[in-house]
Amino acid sequence: MSPFRGSAPLTGDWRNFRFSCADGVATVTLDRPDRLNALTFDTYADLRDLLAELPHRGDVRVLVLRGAGRAFCSGGDVDEIIGETLRLGQRELLEFTRMTGEVVRAMRECPVPVIAGLQGMAAGAGAVLALAADFRVATPAARFAFLFTKVGLSGGDMGAAYLLPRLVGLGRATQLLMLGDPVGAEEAERIGLVSTLVEDGELDGAVDALARRLATGPAHAYAQTKALLTREQDMSLSGAIELEAMTQALLMTGEDYAEFHAAFTGKREPRWQGR
Amino acid sequence: MSPFRGSAPLTGDWRNFRFSCADGVATVTLDRPDRLNALTFDTYADLRDLLAELPHRGDVRVLVLRGAGRAFCSGGDVDEIIGETLRLGQRELLEFTRMTGEVVRAMRECPVPVIAGLQGMAAGAGAVLALAADFRVATPAARFAFLFTKVGLSGGDMGAAYLLPRLVGLGRATQLLMLGDPVGAEEAERIGLVSTLVEDGELDGAVDALARRLATGPAHAYAQTKALLTREQDMSLSGAIELEAMTQALLMTGEDYAEFHAAFTGKREPRWQGR
Amino acid sequence: MSPFRGSAPLTGDWRNFRFSCADGVATVTLDRPDRLNALTFDTYADLRDLLAELPHRGDVRVLVLRGAGRAFCSGGDVDEIIGETLRLGQRELLEFTRMTGEVVRAMRECPVPVIAGLQGMAAGAGAVLALAADFRVATPAARFAFLFTKVGLSGGDMGAAYLLPRLVGLGRATQLLMLGDPVGAEEAERIGLVSTLVEDGELDGAVDALARRLATGPAHAYAQTKALLTREQDMSLSGAIELEAMTQALLMTGEDYAEFHAAFTGKREPRWQGR
Repeated sequence: MSPFRGSAPLTGDWRNFRFSCADGVATVTLDRPDRLNALTFDTYADLRDLLAELPHRGDVRVLVLRGAGRAFCSGGDVDEIIGETLRLGQRELLEFTRMTGEVVRAMRECPVPVIAGLQGMAAGAGAVLALAADFRVATPAARFAFLFTKVGLSGGDMGAAYLLPRLVGLGRATQLLMLGDPVGAEEAERIGLVSTLVEDGELDGAVDALARRLATGPAHAYAQTKALLTREQDMSLSGAIELEAMTQALLMTGEDYAEFHAAFTGKREPRWQGR
Repeated sequence: MSPFRGSAPLTGDWRNFRFSCADGVATVTLDRPDRLNALTFDTYADLRDLLAELPHRGDVRVLVLRGAGRAFCSGGDVDEIIGETLRLGQRELLEFTRMTGEVVRAMRECPVPVIAGLQGMAAGAGAVLALAADFRVATPAARFAFLFTKVGLSGGDMGAAYLLPRLVGLGRATQLLMLGDPVGAEEAERIGLVSTLVEDGELDGAVDALARRLATGPAHAYAQTKALLTREQDMSLSGAIELEAMTQALLMTGEDYAEFHAAFTGKREPRWQGR
Repeated sequence: MSPFRGSAPLTGDWRNFRFSCADGVATVTLDRPDRLNALTFDTYADLRDLLAELPHRGDVRVLVLRGAGRAFCSGGDVDEIIGETLRLGQRELLEFTRMTGEVVRAMRECPVPVIAGLQGMAAGAGAVLALAADFRVATPAARFAFLFTKVGLSGGDMGAAYLLPRLVGLGRATQLLMLGDPVGAEEAERIGLVSTLVEDGELDGAVDALARRLATGPAHAYAQTKALLTREQDMSLSGAIELEAMTQALLMTGEDYAEFHAAFTGKREPRWQGR
């Protein structure tokens, strides 16, 4: 647990996805396979709250995001979200769209690497959740569809028009967001949207191996790397270089840096503490 | 026509390119095939003014940019522009370079998707016009040459040093802008500069199909997607997420979003209004 | 020599790398092949000072960065840097990390194109030096390893978390910086990290040819192209377009632009002055 907690309790029971945490690896599994793991208002709220709590728990070094069944996530439920929003006023609409954006912002800003494991469709908000992860491990059956314009909305949703150009370039992002057509895993790998392409049947193992590597390694170094990558998208060259100088000076006082040197000179493997 | 017009008339006759508009699709054809559609001072001025007027016309949902004959556009005319600028003073030179930049700025900021159809050389300012479009549909004969350094000028012209790295990455943009060597369509597709590569003889059909799709679809959603992609290049993550939340909340009150839901539940195709 | 020098002398003797300068081409060769050209405190200091002096010398139009032997540069020396930093206090640590960042900042901001010639490993700070160059010419044996997390530090070092996403996209940069695994030359070329891939044995020739081309061409145009590419990473679209308009208006008053036109109309090759 973080030493900086006041009165607020942590949530004991997440009702809108499966959640587990062991050995530093937290796993969220969207679990409505009959609806291709479509999101509801409550799922968004729980994702937002979980991501805010994660850094306070003290037992989470990496977050894995999965979908049960054959899809990753088909996005906002047509009935439970699209139908409902047609009945909302402007104030509630904005409260809803801000909540969805808050999920992406928390995914990018929380100091915990996020791995999305993708075995099928990631559509709409599901595609943006995958996009906001740090690593996208995918099988050839994985697909992305930023299909917002196909429901009459902007192709930029939850930060997609910010993030996608920064992964695949402005030209390709324009195609994907404006037209909303699906892109398969091989093409997604080619353009920089998929991090690692694995064979069918190897997804669980690959995701687990990456999660274990991140959880047992120099976790503070990983967390700071993520923080720099996120923040320096919005910084000037000179500001970024100064931030990196500060970061390394801090980490050079840490246990893991000394442990590396001791292990190297002792010709043994480092025993990382994550601090 | 936009309801927000005062005294200023719209231009009735564009004398420095062919212009047509039908079914929501405006088409500009650079039409000096004997000079590979080289640009003159007057062409720039007309492009600048047309792009400023487009959003006010009310009948344009997509702009197609083409070149007559075998080239797209060979850039500024050696005699009519380079020769002339050698006789201008500093004030007029800046007036000229600002005009050319204004064309690119208007292409990026006008809420109308732009398609460039490329069947041959796009050189100098012609390459930047193609770069500033939202979609670049090209045949294998298309080529890009950002040849500004070859005439003794900076490789960054009309915003090229801003736009190109955001499409193909800083390393590749450095090569293309510093050296000015041509890049063919296949390589341009590989690095993210060409959106869609089509066979010889299929360019007109591919451009028309894309233009029709954009003109008959949810046009306001497309326009907002373009606006977000453009603006969020210059925004922070949190600002971008807030802008997208505002945008979607607005579009959720629109006719096309309700139409999508009605069509989906009625198991029919949506009839988009573009609003 | 620059006309804007005061009392400070230029350095006559660089003791921590080999340095030569001829025909506009300056060459720095890291020359500790038995340590794979590992960097020491003194090498960083000399690189920082050389890069600050380069624009003042007046005889340098391009900088070539090489490593002696089979590697480009293996990064900070494990004994002479990592071991030493474990004995430094917070103030000295920050002074060190700021010095290393200053090298990258100077590489990006000095108005001299930089070519890195890569025949083997570029690891840690060596990978960032290569990344900060304008051109990376590499043989198939070249490799990059941003291995900072493997020593317990942040993957962002000396500006890597700023630069790398702008070359290869945020997803690929996350993989490379977070995990620190090596990437080979072919893959690096595919993702935009290697500029030009040449055969074994052709590296010296390719680097020399590029250096000569840049040194004998319109050098002021090249320098301005680099300045725009660097600065416009941190500018808005409209600011970038205005900066390019100013730049071109200035260069249109230069000798090389007039020389291009005279050569073109005279049907001869331009004789570039670099001004």
